[in-house]
Order: sequence, then structure tokens, then C-alpha cells
Amino acid sequence: MRIGELSRRTGVSVPTIKFYVREGLLPAGRLTSPNQASYEETHVRRLRLIRALIDVGGLSVAAVREVIAAVDDPGRPIHDLLGEAAVRMVPRYGAEPAGEDGEGGGEEDAGLVAARERVDALILKRNWRCFPGSPAAEALAVALAALGSVGHERFAEVLDDYAEAAERVARADLDYVAHQVAREELVESVAVGTVLGDALFAALRRLAQIDASDRLFGGGEQRKE
Amino acid sequence: MRIGELSRRTGVSVPTIKFYVREGLLPAGRLTSPNQASYEETHVRRLRLIRALIDVGGLSVAAVREVIAAVDDPGRPIHDLLGEAAVRMVPRYGAEPAGEDGEGGGEEDAGLVAARERVDALILKRNWRCFPGSPAAEALAVALAALGSVGHERFAEVLDDYAEAAERVARADLDYVAHQVAREELVESVAVGTVLGDALFAALRRLAQIDASDRLFGGGEQRKE
Repeated sequence: MRIGELSRRTGVSVPTIKFYVREGLLPAGRLTSPNQASYEETHVRRLRLIRALIDVGGLSVAAVREVIAAVDDPGRPIHDLLGEAAVRMVPRYGAEPAGEDGEGGGEEDAGLVAARERVDALILKRNWRCFPGSPAAEALAVALAALGSVGHERFAEVLDDYAEAAERVARADLDYVAHQVAREELVESVAVGTVLGDALFAALRRLAQIDASDRLFGGGEQRKE
Repeated sequence: MRIGELSRRTGVSVPTIKFYVREGLLPAGRLTSPNQASYEETHVRRLRLIRALIDVGGLSVAAVREVIAAVDDPGRPIHDLLGEAAVRMVPRYGAEPAGEDGEGGGEEDAGLVAARERVDALILKRNWRCFPGSPAAEALAVALAALGSVGHERFAEVLDDYAEAAERVARADLDYVAHQVAREELVESVAVGTVLGDALFAALRRLAQIDASDRLFGGGEQRKE
């Protein structure tokens, strides 16, 4: 197909498609004349993956390039490939120190060290097969340390309930991913499932909180505006 | 206490404290001389709340002002107050349309309408006491519609598992919130728990995914780097 049809099929504009080719994210089309190229179904699928990683996953062009290199490397086993994609979508919030004044740096480090130990203990306890120092483990430690730095270390008591719920969610996630066929589709569904899954779960958590709060504090004033 | 001590106690710089006073987030100190004011413990607690909402919750100064107005209104029941805080921390990702070209607007609206119906049905099915059109319900509908717009409507099959897990997480959240005493502390723990809770859960979900992926695809190559 011509670039115009590729654009229509994927909803990505022609200049953007050309940009992706220049940046090495998308293979160039096959030249059919000096200034016309032909594109295949593989380009459609690749563009869909690129847009999922950028629009939904919020990845940079450089990060997309690395994920795609992993997709294209036939030597990379699937589990490894999923890890490569998931690692780049580690949640970022809570990663900033709470203050703006650069104070308390030493204390925060101590908090982070303690949080890491707590994460390692959790991984061991739940028998999770993941490296204690992996980016996801570090993200968890950072979130725990952030709780401590705003005086809510006790919130970490929810950890076991959260972990139990996370296992249930991850089983549903993997169930979905396992139904994809091509490597590109697998990685794409990790990107989509990871990011939109977070949004989905966060919204459900709010709804369930509103329900629980109403039951606890609302005194049955149900559906009152 | 003087403003310098308030700054030390809270880790918020003096110019920032003055900015919050000017913006109406923090009551002015009691003037002890024409250019010196005295601050109380209530100022410490209020500053902690402001920083939790801004640093952790990512709220704008205007949004903080509205949450604080709700905290200060003795007529607002607690459930309502928690709602006010939670509503402003509705997850935002997935809220943007997927394309950059402004195409497919009509189709997306149809997707959103269908997603809203799905959310209403879920709320009914789970007997959640929340308004079908509430911001959290809308955020869920937007996430579902986003899944559809990137061709992953089937991912929505995880919804029941997610909802089940969300209920468990919300129970743990409310358990924590219910232990706070002052209205300010309640709202602060909603802010902290909501945002850092999302980060906590997202990190746990990644870890549980890595574990599930290894069990499914990894073939027991445990802890291989």
C-alpha cells in the first residue's frame, strides 16, 4: 500500500510516519519508484505498537527504539521481551523527593534503604520470582519511602492486602497477554495492559473506596447528591 | 512560633509559606509586631496537608484551595469531605484521545457511550454505592474507551477480576483512613493514600506480573540475569 493508505489505516499522519522511519522505529517502505514507497501489513502492526508505546505507555522515542530492538531480536525469549517492555513502564510517581528545599536528603536515603529491605522481605514471603533489585521492586521501595517521608509509614501496613490483590490482577493480565499470537502483539498488549490497566484499576479503586467510605461514614445516605 | 521555626518544622521554605498565605491556602499568622507574625500547631498541620495535596497528589493551588474550603466547612459530613478530596485525584492517564490527528472523533464518542453503559452495569452488579456519572466512573469509562480505541476492547474482560481486587484494596485503604482523628488528617491520608497507594499498587502489579510471566513463559529459568 502507499503511505497515504498506511496513514488512513493507522490514523498516524504521513509526516509522523516519515519521522518514525527517519528515527529508525519503522522500517522504510520498499521503493517502487525514486519517490514512492510501498508498505505492508507488517508496517501497520509495527505502527500500532509504536503508537501504543508512545500514546498509551508514554515512552520516549529512544525507549520505543529499544523495545522494538528487543521485539526484532529472535534470540530474546518471550519472558525476557515482556520484561523489557514492562520495565520501561514502571510507574514514576512518588519518585520525586517530597520537599522542594533539598533538605533531609540523608534521612530519605535511610528511609529508602529500610524500604528496600521491606520490599525484599515481601518478595521472599510471597515467593515472587523476580530480582529484588529490579526496577519494579525499586519503584515499590520509592513509594514506600515516600510514604515515610510524608509521615505515613503506617500506610505500608496495607502491603499484604495490596500484594494479594496485585496477584489476582496480574493473573488476569497474563491471561489476556497469553492469548496474543505475534511477538509484536504480545509486547503491544503488555504496553496497553500495563498503562491502561493501571488507569482501569485506579478508577475501580476510587469507586470501591467511595462505596466503602459510604458504608463506613455515610450512614446509608445512599445516592444523595 | 516564628515563621523560621514553622519552616524548619515542615521543611517548607519561608517564601513558599508566604506564597501559601497570599494564595489563601494557609491562614495568616497572628501579628505580634508590625512585621512579625506568630504561628501555631494548626499551621503545621495545615502545611502538611497542603504539601501532601501538592507534592503527592499533584493538585494545583486552585484545587487545594477548594479541598481546604471543604475541610474548613463544619457542615460538610466526612464522607462528603473524603469524596471532595478523592474526586480531585482521579487518575488522568488514558484521558487523552489516542491519535494526534483529531480523526475518529465520532467513533470515539460511540466507544465512550458504550463504555459508560458498561461501567453503570458493573456498578449495579457489584452493588457499589456510587453515582454512575461520578468522576471515578467517568475515568473508568475513559480508560475502557481508550482500550477500545487502540484495538484492545477484549482487555476489558479483566474487569471483574480487577473489581474484586479493587474492593480488597479499598477495604485496606479505608481501614487506614478510619484510624485518623482530625478532619485534616483524614483528608491528608486520603490524598497520600490515593496517590501513593496507586504507585504502591502499580509497582506490586509489575512484580506480580513478572512472577506470573516467569511461571507462564519462563520455563523455570529463575533469577537468571
